[in-house]
Amino acid sequence: MSLAPWRSRLTLALERNPQLNARYLQLATVGADNRPANRTVVFRGFYVDTDKLKFVVDARSQKITQIEQHPWAETCWYFPESREQFRISGCLTLVIANYPDLALQQARQDTWQELSDAARLQYTWPDPGQPKADAAAFESLPPNPKEPLPHFCLLLLQPVQVDHLELRGEPQNRWIYCRNDVNDWSTQAINP
Amino acid sequence: MSLAPWRSRLTLALERNPQLNARYLQLATVGADNRPANRTVVFRGFYVDTDKLKFVVDARSQKITQIEQHPWAETCWYFPESREQFRISGCLTLVIANYPDLALQQARQDTWQELSDAARLQYTWPDPGQPKADAAAFESLPPNPKEPLPHFCLLLLQPVQVDHLELRGEPQNRWIYCRNDVNDWSTQAINP
Repeated sequence: MSLAPWRSRLTLALERNPQLNARYLQLATVGADNRPANRTVVFRGFYVDTDKLKFVVDARSQKITQIEQHPWAETCWYFPESREQFRISGCLTLVIANYPDLALQQARQDTWQELSDAARLQYTWPDPGQPKADAAAFESLPPNPKEPLPHFCLLLLQPVQVDHLELRGEPQNRWIYCRNDVNDWSTQAINP
Repeated sequence: MSLAPWRSRLTLALERNPQLNARYLQLATVGADNRPANRTVVFRGFYVDTDKLKFVVDARSQKITQIEQHPWAETCWYFPESREQFRISGCLTLVIANYPDLALQQARQDTWQELSDAARLQYTWPDPGQPKADAAAFESLPPNPKEPLPHFCLLLLQPVQVDHLELRGEPQNRWIYCRNDVNDWSTQAINP
C-alpha cells in the first residue's frame, strides 16, 4: 500500500516535536444525547501497513458506548513546537477481547505488550468515572504484561479527511486531503 | 456572583502553565451530518462576572453553521506543564454583529479591541476553507482596531459540567463539577 499524502507531513511534525506531549491529541465523538465529547488520547502509531491511527481505551469508560453508537470521530492534534494542527476525521473500529478478526486480535495483544507498566496498571484500577474508591482499591499487583485484561481495547481510526494548518506560514498554509470511495487521496491548498 | 468551584482550579492551572500555548484548547461541536468537528481555539478569558469562556470566531468559517444548528460543545484543555486536563461542556452563544443584547454587543467590540494586530488582520483574509487565493489577496491594510469587521464574532461557552483530571496524582485525581437548574455547582471526586 502506498502511504496517504498527508503521512509525510505528519511524520515531519512528529520529528519536529520530539517531546512526549506531542503524541497527545484530542479525540471528539458524539454521545447518545447527540452532544459532543472530547478527551485527550495518546497516539500509539499506525496499524501495520495502513493509515489507521492506533489508540487504547478502557471498555469500562463512557466513550465505549459513544463509539459503538456513533463510530465517527474527529481528532484535533496541535503541535506546539512547529505550530501546526492536523484535524483528522474518520471512522473508529473498537477491537475488544475476542474480536472476530484474528489479525486485529493479535494487534490488540501486541499493543498491550508495548504499553508501559504504569499504563497497564491503570487497567487494574476501579471503574473509571465512578465515585472515588478507597486508596486501597488502587493498590493492585501489575497485570500480566503478555495477556491483556478483558476490558483493554485497541481503538483504530481510519481517516477519510485530514485538514493540515501551518500557523507559521506567511500567510498561514492550509491543505485538505480527502479520500474517495476507491481509497485515492486528493490534495487541495485552501485559505487558512 | 460567586465563582464556580472549578474556577480556582483552572486559575491555578493557568498560573502553573504560563506559556502562551497553554491558552490553546480544543473545541468539539456536532455538524449537520451528526459527525463531530474538533479544532484548536484560543481562550480569551471569562465574560465579565460570569463563568462563560470567551473565544473569537470568523462568521465565514464552517463552525458557524454547526454552532447555529447544534450549540452544544465540549472543550478539552490539556496543560502539559502541570499534566492536567479540563473537559468543559456546555452551551455556546454566538455574538454576531448587531446582536440584540447591548452588553454582549459591547463585549464583542471590546474583544476586537483587545486582539493583536496580527489576529485582527486575519479577518481581512479571503474566505477560510475556500481554494487558496493568490498571495495578493492576503495583502490587506490592517483593519480599524476600534470597530470589528462584520464577520468577527464573539463566542461564549456557558459550562454545565467540568471534568478535571490530574495525571500527577498517586493514583491520578479526578473530579466532576455539575451545575443544576438553579445554577448551584456540585463537586464529586471520581475514579480516574
